[in-house]
Amino acid sequence: MRTPLQAARPCFFDKLAAEGETGLIHVVAPGLPNGSDTGHLALLGYDPHTYYTGRGPFEALGAGVELREGDVAFRCNFGTVSDDLVLIDRRAGRISSAEAKELAADLQKISVDGVEIVFKHTVEHRGVLVLRGEGLSHKVSNVDPHGVNVKIKHAQPLEDSEAAFKTAKVLNTFLQESRRILAKHPVNIRRREQGLPPANYVLTRGAGIAPKIPPFEQRFRLKPAVIAGGALYKGVAKALGFEVMDVEGATGTVSTNVEGKVRAMVDGLKKYDFILLHYKATDVVSHDRKPLEKVAMIQRLAKALENVWDELHDIYVAVTGDHTTPSEIGDHRGDPVPLLIWGPDVRGDNVKHFDEISCGMGGLGRIRGVDLMPILGNYAGVMEMYGE
Amino acid sequence: MRTPLQAARPCFFDKLAAEGETGLIHVVAPGLPNGSDTGHLALLGYDPHTYYTGRGPFEALGAGVELREGDVAFRCNFGTVSDDLVLIDRRAGRISSAEAKELAADLQKISVDGVEIVFKHTVEHRGVLVLRGEGLSHKVSNVDPHGVNVKIKHAQPLEDSEAAFKTAKVLNTFLQESRRILAKHPVNIRRREQGLPPANYVLTRGAGIAPKIPPFEQRFRLKPAVIAGGALYKGVAKALGFEVMDVEGATGTVSTNVEGKVRAMVDGLKKYDFILLHYKATDVVSHDRKPLEKVAMIQRLAKALENVWDELHDIYVAVTGDHTTPSEIGDHRGDPVPLLIWGPDVRGDNVKHFDEISCGMGGLGRIRGVDLMPILGNYAGVMEMYGE
Repeated sequence: MRTPLQAARPCFFDKLAAEGETGLIHVVAPGLPNGSDTGHLALLGYDPHTYYTGRGPFEALGAGVELREGDVAFRCNFGTVSDDLVLIDRRAGRISSAEAKELAADLQKISVDGVEIVFKHTVEHRGVLVLRGEGLSHKVSNVDPHGVNVKIKHAQPLEDSEAAFKTAKVLNTFLQESRRILAKHPVNIRRREQGLPPANYVLTRGAGIAPKIPPFEQRFRLKPAVIAGGALYKGVAKALGFEVMDVEGATGTVSTNVEGKVRAMVDGLKKYDFILLHYKATDVVSHDRKPLEKVAMIQRLAKALENVWDELHDIYVAVTGDHTTPSEIGDHRGDPVPLLIWGPDVRGDNVKHFDEISCGMGGLGRIRGVDLMPILGNYAGVMEMYGE
Repeated sequence: MRTPLQAARPCFFDKLAAEGETGLIHVVAPGLPNGSDTGHLALLGYDPHTYYTGRGPFEALGAGVELREGDVAFRCNFGTVSDDLVLIDRRAGRISSAEAKELAADLQKISVDGVEIVFKHTVEHRGVLVLRGEGLSHKVSNVDPHGVNVKIKHAQPLEDSEAAFKTAKVLNTFLQESRRILAKHPVNIRRREQGLPPANYVLTRGAGIAPKIPPFEQRFRLKPAVIAGGALYKGVAKALGFEVMDVEGATGTVSTNVEGKVRAMVDGLKKYDFILLHYKATDVVSHDRKPLEKVAMIQRLAKALENVWDELHDIYVAVTGDHTTPSEIGDHRGDPVPLLIWGPDVRGDNVKHFDEISCGMGGLGRIRGVDLMPILGNYAGVMEMYGE
């Protein structure tokens, strides 16, 4: 049986692998399945064990919220609950962005005991919540139970601190107040009339306090930018001081404008030294367990890159993933991801193909995610010498 | 020249290697020879630098002593000393288990200054000593000089603490008292009459304080059991919360009932999620520098596994060692050990044989001992995701 990367042969990544150097990356640690947040931190050279405080702040940054020190941020879904608070739909029937935006605008008006509330809608049923005030903590439990037909629980403090108790209390007050507003909201009255599930509860998870992270440019002496559809990837990059290059039609889904993203990269390289181009489509179809569509998504990205290749000069390219998502399983796993590095003076190896098995024989061996940026920085000649 | 694993070809492990994925393990760290205790901790996912406090407690647990917090445990040999305390035989002529058990029963009666003494015989000349009381320390020197024709020294404190001084004093009092009892013991009177070396001194080593270790089942969400002959392997596993499956004839020597152990594994997999099957025979003949017997011992285990293979379904198998013991040298060395992982969806590689050289070309590359369990846990789907 072939993996989707093997089935995508021949593609442009095979040419790059044959000319360049390959290996495998334990993104965070061997065998440890990681999220996209911890994975991107590691691949960009930041040990998540030091810098990760939860996904919320990265989502909030990606959604355009300017975080301040001490802010506590959550990812949110609009969900549908019964009268006795049993969760019926985690996505409120994948409510439209237009409707969700209307709801979010009214939740933004809530304020609780001197704590400022920022509630911002992102895409479809998704949004972010930021609590801003003195003495808050991210040590509070997820309200989102991550499965349906269970009763929603109140947020609980996860440590015995005044800040955690206060934050849980503020969050629960916000949830109660938002429930009251959502219950009688015209958008939901209309949805009920149309037989659609109302977006009548806010499900929070991934609480995190705004992290303090030394800027990427300071560490690697490269001026960085990010091109991505999803808010998270932009958020992680923004937290590291990247500029965000917005591309029309970059949706973070299978319908994304990959040609536009690659074009933006070519143009962006005139202004920036380092560009993170994130491509989500392969992961989306993996979660949906569609290996054949994954093959097509790989080929599409490879083709888009091949089409602009002649316009690129004096660059290094690294191709890899922030985690595996085996399309048989449909969820993240802790297997190592393949890596290729192409560029002037890159040490070659005998590997001719870009896939999980071939790269296991590559000259880069097995590295950890946090080792990638120093290796790239070394090729780029920007690493400071240690010792004399 | 071939290694015993190479000389054992073709064997069932080669088939598993060809179908599975291979690599090398630095059990604790590259080039560092390790004991069986630190090696097993690492392979089971516990960094010995964090959790290892000496071999004594693991031997004691394996011998069936229930350790309490603060207990200090030692491995012991019965030895033979001259009247002026020069060591003549570290094993008292490999005294029989029956005789040693009688001696041990009388040593158990000693008590010193309010410190409780547990002295338990295990196999032949071997036993364990546990000191139980307030304010004890494992920072005391070995009494066993590990070589003959040298004078036995008193136990010394290894740090400048009240607890270490107290423990050395208690231990020396115990040794003095036990010497008095052993000198006039009927077993030894009989041995002297028969021209056999008397077991007239207790040689202690490997002092350790009962370690605090988070249970394996809690960390990896797998219900574990151990099948082993030697007390140490059972002891390490018990310290991690494993259940012990006793197998008749599992001796931890070349005469062990390997077929019985493998049978117990097959049966045990109905009840447990993870089974550690330890096979000591290859190590025993390596210490004796008998490479040809090592070949036979490898083939015997491989054959036993092959015979039950059809009864095993939906399992992952990892085959490796807890250290190398080159049969030319007869002692532990710090070379990496070969590893094979076989099971559904394991990434393949090009390796066709299970031996030290072939596995060096394997897809798993070189991993550390502590990485093995996360990799297996990932395949088993029990690793919790880090990040979102």
